[in-house]
Amino acid sequence: MKSIIYRIEIQTRHETELINITPRVIDLIQTSGVKDGTVFVLSLHTTTAITVNEGLPDLEKDITGLIHNLVPEENTYYHARFLPSDGQMAVNAPSHLRGALLGFQVFFPIQDGKILTGARQTIYFVELDGPQARAYVVQVMGE
Amino acid sequence: MKSIIYRIEIQTRHETELINITPRVIDLIQTSGVKDGTVFVLSLHTTTAITVNEGLPDLEKDITGLIHNLVPEENTYYHARFLPSDGQMAVNAPSHLRGALLGFQVFFPIQDGKILTGARQTIYFVELDGPQARAYVVQVMGE
Amino acid sequence: MKSIIYRIEIQTRHETELINITPRVIDLIQTSGVKDGTVFVLSLHTTTAITVNEGLPDLEKDITGLIHNLVPEENTYYHARFLPSDGQMAVNAPSHLRGALLGFQVFFPIQDGKILTGARQTIYFVELDGPQARAYVVQVMGE
Repeated sequence: MKSIIYRIEIQTRHETELINITPRVIDLIQTSGVKDGTVFVLSLHTTTAITVNEGLPDLEKDITGLIHNLVPEENTYYHARFLPSDGQMAVNAPSHLRGALLGFQVFFPIQDGKILTGARQTIYFVELDGPQARAYVVQVMGE
Repeated sequence: MKSIIYRIEIQTRHETELINITPRVIDLIQTSGVKDGTVFVLSLHTTTAITVNEGLPDLEKDITGLIHNLVPEENTYYHARFLPSDGQMAVNAPSHLRGALLGFQVFFPIQDGKILTGARQTIYFVELDGPQARAYVVQVMGE
Repeated sequence: MKSIIYRIEIQTRHETELINITPRVIDLIQTSGVKDGTVFVLSLHTTTAITVNEGLPDLEKDITGLIHNLVPEENTYYHARFLPSDGQMAVNAPSHLRGALLGFQVFFPIQDGKILTGARQTIYFVELDGPQARAYVVQVMGE
């Protein structure tokens, strides 16, 4: 059994942003040489998410709208205070909570060297507190 | 290590509907012959979900109520326009967003040939834009 | 390939409570001897959750606030009736729904015998209907 781990750097450009990472995941499965197994995709941050949806710009805007509706910027949060570890005020409580709702990881089967997804399933890296330099991990497990 | 993938067809009957697929998952683990490993269950659509909860009809109604409350039909959505790829108006933005909140995949350990779940954990395929012909995947990995 | 499954008992102390289980997961990976693979962490209950966030007490309060806002105690729920199987009234519909929003399972890669997480990622067991005696599972898969 092989376990091959790729750490992918990504520079986001907006406060909230859905970035289609499906082609990158597909490439890495091919690079790994794994024919049968599972691919795990996860973000390494707590103010980002990984989600799957149909790859349409209007749905990307609707997902952005949803998480801003459910976790409004103007609410009062405990995580809004001086953080000694960061040397600055924390102002990103909503980013953390939006991530908790969307989740930050997905998996898909690999069959005959190919990812098994539905025809409309697009894998998104979701920036929730950008722009920032970010990273996510793609782990390919199998034989 | 074995990786055995089953694609299960399912015909839903309602607009929103929670269908208990636990017995099917248990059967497929037994069919696979895998004794120690993990089972992965995922939907292949972006307007469905996979969730786990106690298998009670009143909770199924409460989950339906929750996602309709959090993602109301009457809100304004960007994904509400003519889609050339489908040849019709998109009217299912809420279905996509409800799926994003519930998630669309779960896993469970397999121990001595049996799925390891809590006594009250029921695996549900959740239709969010039905009725439709749907499919989900059960992948059994292990030895 | 090894699959080693640990069942961890935990006594919660509050109605809603986030308990950092990261050190326990790290210990179990070391105990397992697995060097390359994946760790799966899942709760065995339907009124608890597993979530990942930055390990700060103020964020724990904000997550608690979020799920209480999105699933208010005072709403009307179907799951609020006499349950013959339990011999008492069900009063915990909100606990079930809060769990459905947060999810109840996560995974992380294992590389060189160590869990691969982001620097700020803390794994939480989330009590949503406590205090109770609870259990979660840590499965270590790999070689």
